[in-house]
Amino acid sequence: MPSVEFITSLQNPRVKQLVKLRDRRPRDEAGVFLVEGYRQIVRALDKGIPLTELYLCPEWYLGDQGNEPALIARAQAAGSHVFQLTKDAFAKVAYRERPDGLLAVAPQWRRNLADLDAQLGQNPARAPFLLVVEAIEKPGNLGTILRSADAAGVDALIICDPVTDLFNPNVVRASTGVVFSVPVIIATSEEVRPWLARRHIRAVATTPSATDLYTATDLCGPLAIVMGSEQYGLSEFWLREADARVLIPMAGQADSLNVAMATIITLFEAVRQRG
Amino acid sequence: MPSVEFITSLQNPRVKQLVKLRDRRPRDEAGVFLVEGYRQIVRALDKGIPLTELYLCPEWYLGDQGNEPALIARAQAAGSHVFQLTKDAFAKVAYRERPDGLLAVAPQWRRNLADLDAQLGQNPARAPFLLVVEAIEKPGNLGTILRSADAAGVDALIICDPVTDLFNPNVVRASTGVVFSVPVIIATSEEVRPWLARRHIRAVATTPSATDLYTATDLCGPLAIVMGSEQYGLSEFWLREADARVLIPMAGQADSLNVAMATIITLFEAVRQRG
Repeated sequence: MPSVEFITSLQNPRVKQLVKLRDRRPRDEAGVFLVEGYRQIVRALDKGIPLTELYLCPEWYLGDQGNEPALIARAQAAGSHVFQLTKDAFAKVAYRERPDGLLAVAPQWRRNLADLDAQLGQNPARAPFLLVVEAIEKPGNLGTILRSADAAGVDALIICDPVTDLFNPNVVRASTGVVFSVPVIIATSEEVRPWLARRHIRAVATTPSATDLYTATDLCGPLAIVMGSEQYGLSEFWLREADARVLIPMAGQADSLNVAMATIITLFEAVRQRG
Repeated sequence: MPSVEFITSLQNPRVKQLVKLRDRRPRDEAGVFLVEGYRQIVRALDKGIPLTELYLCPEWYLGDQGNEPALIARAQAAGSHVFQLTKDAFAKVAYRERPDGLLAVAPQWRRNLADLDAQLGQNPARAPFLLVVEAIEKPGNLGTILRSADAAGVDALIICDPVTDLFNPNVVRASTGVVFSVPVIIATSEEVRPWLARRHIRAVATTPSATDLYTATDLCGPLAIVMGSEQYGLSEFWLREADARVLIPMAGQADSLNVAMATIITLFEAVRQRG
């Protein structure tokens, strides 16, 4: 392996910085985020994510998941700086419960509605299929929502008024790498609403206060499914501004479906109708 | 409050036993399980679960979630023994990250296919709607599957060859109390298959190897949806023995949908068709 730098001290500035990157403010200040683990790093490379730094520790390799030397060579070929850490130093920088000796740093990105305009413009014949979520709080839910968006084949996920950082290590992990591929747009609700109207995209919001069943509502054509937050549900703004409000019928206790589950159900009904 | 026993020692046998009940073997030996937290305990009481013991510590009460004295009175009226613990003792017995000063012990139950026969016999005009899962491993997934089963209104969840204990504290928590109400049957796949056949219940299994779309397959009438395990998917047994195999189409990466997500999608398509 060419040019691998060795780090042995727990006081090394890079070690300290990696620990800091678990928190949002230092992450945003540095404009980067953490990608930990063999599978996640492979997926990032597969999606062409530039990994500026790759930290490794062979003593932590699990030994049964793949070819670490090939992964390292691939990262180096793509321009990664590679650092090898002592076992103790790696234990300090790893955020997973069971580290596997691989941790990378990648630059953050931001996409806005203008980027989405450009993306949709590349395929003007296709009716846009978007998912809009309000202020999701739990990293696990955001990760699950990203996975659902990927599986359903939406063009983009629009996060209005975000509470959870997309680059939170638990979002990256829970998304199983989908965060590297599904386009995610960050905007305010007040920006998103007129943008949808301008593009003639129907906003269909899911809420227990609706009377029309989600299965009895047309989900074909240019569509944005709108989901509320975990704690507060759909905001007054979207309750009022949506073009249609739909209900998912529930047989059991009122809170059996959380927002991630309701999102999957609605997305796949849209997939069915759009056939 | 009548008859509250005080426990101050961390060495008290009841304190030690509560800690042990986080593990399956002592839980099964004692035939009981733990229910922690105000909301879960209220739900257990609502569903008529007999809480044999209730442990409380006012110093841990969150103060904003309800009326603890009323809950305690209700449990006592239903026959619970009540114990008050010191702050340290409660910290030791609580398994949640943020304890709220309430922990109960309830007897386990077991339901088998004969119980399900009796249950279905009470409403012979209704076409049975069942969910069968194989060897689910993660407590969080089993909890989510229970919530989906509740929301979709299935008659029962049948767990074949269980790996995760239904009474694992993390299943109880992830189920948001649904474990107290959705009938859960434990049996082997070899018992379940002929039982379904005898009752003329169609077994429809979800698998990526199928060619028929789940939305293009009849999910009305007597139905058992069969889902595989997280790691291995559907077993050879159910791949062979199912009456139909159906596919959920996926647009993105192969593993975007986990078993809990695939279960929600299939259950709610069945709900739509059975409408």
